[in-house]
Amino acid sequence: IDELKVSTATPVGFPAAACSPAAPAAKYPSVRLTGFFQADSGWFSQSDANRLAVGIGVIEDGDVQDGSDFRRARLAAVGDVWDNVSYMLEMDFAFPGRPSFMDVWLDIDVLDGDSHLRIGQYRQPVGMDGLTSVKDMTFLERGLPFAFLPFRQIGAMWYGVNRTQDITWAISGFRFPTDVYANNVGDNGGYAMAARLTGLMVDAKDGGAILHVGASYSYLDPANDQIQIRNQPEVFVGENGLASLGPAGVPSFVPPFVDTGQVATEHVNLLGAELAGVLGAFHWQTEALFANVDQKGGPSLVFPGAYVQAGYFLTGETRPYNRSAGVLGRIKPNCSVGKEGGIGAWELAVRYSTIDLNDKNIQGNRLNNVTGGVNWYMNPFTKFQFNYIHAMLDSPAYGSSNADIVAMRAQLDF
Amino acid sequence: IDELKVSTATPVGFPAAACSPAAPAAKYPSVRLTGFFQADSGWFSQSDANRLAVGIGVIEDGDVQDGSDFRRARLAAVGDVWDNVSYMLEMDFAFPGRPSFMDVWLDIDVLDGDSHLRIGQYRQPVGMDGLTSVKDMTFLERGLPFAFLPFRQIGAMWYGVNRTQDITWAISGFRFPTDVYANNVGDNGGYAMAARLTGLMVDAKDGGAILHVGASYSYLDPANDQIQIRNQPEVFVGENGLASLGPAGVPSFVPPFVDTGQVATEHVNLLGAELAGVLGAFHWQTEALFANVDQKGGPSLVFPGAYVQAGYFLTGETRPYNRSAGVLGRIKPNCSVGKEGGIGAWELAVRYSTIDLNDKNIQGNRLNNVTGGVNWYMNPFTKFQFNYIHAMLDSPAYGSSNADIVAMRAQLDF
Amino acid sequence: IDELKVSTATPVGFPAAACSPAAPAAKYPSVRLTGFFQADSGWFSQSDANRLAVGIGVIEDGDVQDGSDFRRARLAAVGDVWDNVSYMLEMDFAFPGRPSFMDVWLDIDVLDGDSHLRIGQYRQPVGMDGLTSVKDMTFLERGLPFAFLPFRQIGAMWYGVNRTQDITWAISGFRFPTDVYANNVGDNGGYAMAARLTGLMVDAKDGGAILHVGASYSYLDPANDQIQIRNQPEVFVGENGLASLGPAGVPSFVPPFVDTGQVATEHVNLLGAELAGVLGAFHWQTEALFANVDQKGGPSLVFPGAYVQAGYFLTGETRPYNRSAGVLGRIKPNCSVGKEGGIGAWELAVRYSTIDLNDKNIQGNRLNNVTGGVNWYMNPFTKFQFNYIHAMLDSPAYGSSNADIVAMRAQLDF
Repeated sequence: IDELKVSTATPVGFPAAACSPAAPAAKYPSVRLTGFFQADSGWFSQSDANRLAVGIGVIEDGDVQDGSDFRRARLAAVGDVWDNVSYMLEMDFAFPGRPSFMDVWLDIDVLDGDSHLRIGQYRQPVGMDGLTSVKDMTFLERGLPFAFLPFRQIGAMWYGVNRTQDITWAISGFRFPTDVYANNVGDNGGYAMAARLTGLMVDAKDGGAILHVGASYSYLDPANDQIQIRNQPEVFVGENGLASLGPAGVPSFVPPFVDTGQVATEHVNLLGAELAGVLGAFHWQTEALFANVDQKGGPSLVFPGAYVQAGYFLTGETRPYNRSAGVLGRIKPNCSVGKEGGIGAWELAVRYSTIDLNDKNIQGNRLNNVTGGVNWYMNPFTKFQFNYIHAMLDSPAYGSSNADIVAMRAQLDF
Repeated sequence: IDELKVSTATPVGFPAAACSPAAPAAKYPSVRLTGFFQADSGWFSQSDANRLAVGIGVIEDGDVQDGSDFRRARLAAVGDVWDNVSYMLEMDFAFPGRPSFMDVWLDIDVLDGDSHLRIGQYRQPVGMDGLTSVKDMTFLERGLPFAFLPFRQIGAMWYGVNRTQDITWAISGFRFPTDVYANNVGDNGGYAMAARLTGLMVDAKDGGAILHVGASYSYLDPANDQIQIRNQPEVFVGENGLASLGPAGVPSFVPPFVDTGQVATEHVNLLGAELAGVLGAFHWQTEALFANVDQKGGPSLVFPGAYVQAGYFLTGETRPYNRSAGVLGRIKPNCSVGKEGGIGAWELAVRYSTIDLNDKNIQGNRLNNVTGGVNWYMNPFTKFQFNYIHAMLDSPAYGSSNADIVAMRAQLDF
Repeated sequence: IDELKVSTATPVGFPAAACSPAAPAAKYPSVRLTGFFQADSGWFSQSDANRLAVGIGVIEDGDVQDGSDFRRARLAAVGDVWDNVSYMLEMDFAFPGRPSFMDVWLDIDVLDGDSHLRIGQYRQPVGMDGLTSVKDMTFLERGLPFAFLPFRQIGAMWYGVNRTQDITWAISGFRFPTDVYANNVGDNGGYAMAARLTGLMVDAKDGGAILHVGASYSYLDPANDQIQIRNQPEVFVGENGLASLGPAGVPSFVPPFVDTGQVATEHVNLLGAELAGVLGAFHWQTEALFANVDQKGGPSLVFPGAYVQAGYFLTGETRPYNRSAGVLGRIKPNCSVGKEGGIGAWELAVRYSTIDLNDKNIQGNRLNNVTGGVNWYMNPFTKFQFNYIHAMLDSPAYGSSNADIVAMRAQLDF
């Protein structure tokens, strides 16, 4: 039994660590419950030509139905488990995965906390629109080029910001394509990477005048040797589950207006450029994205997309810039509705958005959207959004056609 | 750049709001995690005639199996995001939606807080039984006429209570029928409304003697031009998922004893009347509901249902009345089990319940249930319930038959 | 109305309880949000003979794919609702049930708190490995004999520990087999029981030297008169949902290496024996399990399984013993990474594991695994695990073959 004592006192392999005064372990783990939901309604006005093109030759299949739904409903646990390790475990209950994995990661401070290593599922670092919180979006949905983004995938990312907080960078390796439960398998490929670099070029008037530039690159080698790029017309109302109670013979969900179908490919290259600015109550941002698909058994394909959008606060707020993430941030009304006696923040917004999924043998349609928006922020955590969308579809097979869409949202987060 | 300064200082469109001293924003958002579960067991004794009627001509299909299950298991986040805005985000993990959307809404105080605007999914204001919290029910399940209720649907409701808190009112517009994920689509209808008015006629002896009356009305125009009314015999034990491990050839869930099947309809009118009272340790309530279905391609249909139930606390508790909701409330034992040294609250209860889904061309069966119950409330948050149900089924096709059911529940909420 | 007063004051049936001074009811219910996730990656090297055996004659069906996934991701609410009642409501979002019911129970102190009555779904008291928290496992997965355990089922359990906390006991009755949503039905059987008894034989050096023995017994009468025993080679990477995006023609999940298929049976007897010890930085445990299947229409079957495993902490930690559960507990690094300036805890581990599902007419294969592991505990709540598994498969139909597997895990709990 003497061996025992020795064994306990001087372990083999490592010298005894000189441990600093005990950290306040009682603090850890910390946990905070957070979440949000978005209740949407949409009304659709389509020409028969539009129904025919969206339904790929069957009018009924393209007859988008009015409706109300929960677009997103999420609960998350966030916190710290140690002085240098934080986490998030977020589930969405409104997406078809029911629930779907959202941000599920742990984050370790490296190099004195100026940079971080993130492991798990997270939004891959491509584009400004994709990295803007879905709670802070100016419109109901991200612009059409969002269709190109890998978005949430399972992997590991090293990212950070410089000391003066005007340059952000991120580089990530991940499995692709990750399913809605954050899983991916496949022996033949299935690996991908993404990187983004942004700079704050102008920062004057205490955030009242900023200019942001950024660029992203991603290389995708899909495990199933396939890629599908598609998107709805910036509105997604529907009954997206097994249990649709909607009418028969028509879609229970907004079908894609642009869709490449499954394209056989060994790898895809994505390139993105972004530019954004704030000038008092005015803010704007624009991005262009290109997907270069190395098609198997066919020619190489290039699909472009772009958008430009702007917003103006009638009530005088200035949209803040999130210096650690390199995106435009969240609005806090100057004077909220309630005991403060205010009217909240009112914003007018406009966007032009385009995506072209026609190239060579692929006829995935081209879509141009013009959207007008009115946003009412009752308080920092409650907002109502109204969008009018004019969608101009160009189908090689079924010709040009239009759809007009009115949609609104009630959003609350906590 | 001088323009900038001007732009920031004097926004166009609205005068600068005169904001009251800052609200204690640090308080918001608040969040509390809450939830509950119900673990049930049931044992069924049926005649072959009953199995034949329930199985619609196939004895095996109507052979209800004994079993144990979780009837409900819910987690919810509730709180306030501002001084005049509250919310709930609740998911149920035991319902077939897995998870299913329950109460997911935001609530805005209007008109000095005496009334509220609720947006999202919530229980539509029809009937006393449906609006009583499922945690506070006297029996395992609501009475048979519950089959008529629209219950949780997505919409907006204005509701309130008068200053003396003896009249409650609610009026709601919503999409119908909402699926288990709180979504609905459909161009042809899909809109509905509901309203309820209640009054506290007698309120004496500090709540020891109350008399409540109420009435409800609902108009339903289903998006799919169909309605199906059905119900189990006030017990729901089963494996209601994709992954049933139960025996083959028999139902994995209690099948409906009454069921109209899908009835084509343009609209349905519901009418409900309610009456309830408390007299010391004794409480009772009764409701009648009528569904008037405007059948397409067939005659107009009327389906009635009603129940009367009563409970008596052997341990002397008085069931409280919830003045803001117009329903009977939750029991707190006079003396809980544990350090208080009590035996909790013991309640005897009895219910008669009826629903008739036979009318003209629809043969949905008629069911009369007599239920006896014993409830043991260990403490305010833990209770055990025992029900004996005698179900008397009257099938036009398969004759009269009986089933005897014993069921029990362990419930805990937090 | 005088009757009323009387009725309230002197309830019939029970004398007025002499209630002790009010418990601090404001304390209850308490709730704490807790959870964890495990992000895994695996790489597989198989011979064609192994693919053939695993794929039951089809090489492609046995070609296990590399991949990354979330093995487990859980949220739970835990707390107390009264001075003698606690609860847990836990959901897993990574299991196929999506979400699946995990520990969902209420727990009542009985007999002065030395023993407890648990009602709901919980891990049945069989074996040390199965009752060790999945967060505290030395390897990525439990040993191969885990395949025999009933594990989580819905029922009621009486369990406790003696006053000197060196003997634990548990006896449980439950429905079987419970589906992923904690439900079970079936008239013909469906009842089962399990019991476990453990003793702490040696406890010296303040926990630095312990010896544990234990035994378990379980009787299972499956509701569906079937039992299937199977297991993967101690690694489970895959896309286990409806929405697999993996390559076609190969499994999207690690298929079982051993599998009896469905065996018709009236009842099954399980026997388990366990032995474990700690000696300074060294810990070890071993178990043997036997399943005796009373086959219908065939001979009685016996399937054995066993494992022995050991771990050694290079950094000198001693693995604690959980005296109330009778299992080895959780490691807290002597000096965590971060402000404490440590390197965390580093552990080397090795396991030999075996299961034989060949008996008489059943050819379920035999599997022997040798696993080497390196564990790095950054802090008490974050760990990284590396496993190398050499799986030796013996298939009566397809011969002997090997697979080599490298797998790693990032785990965070809160």
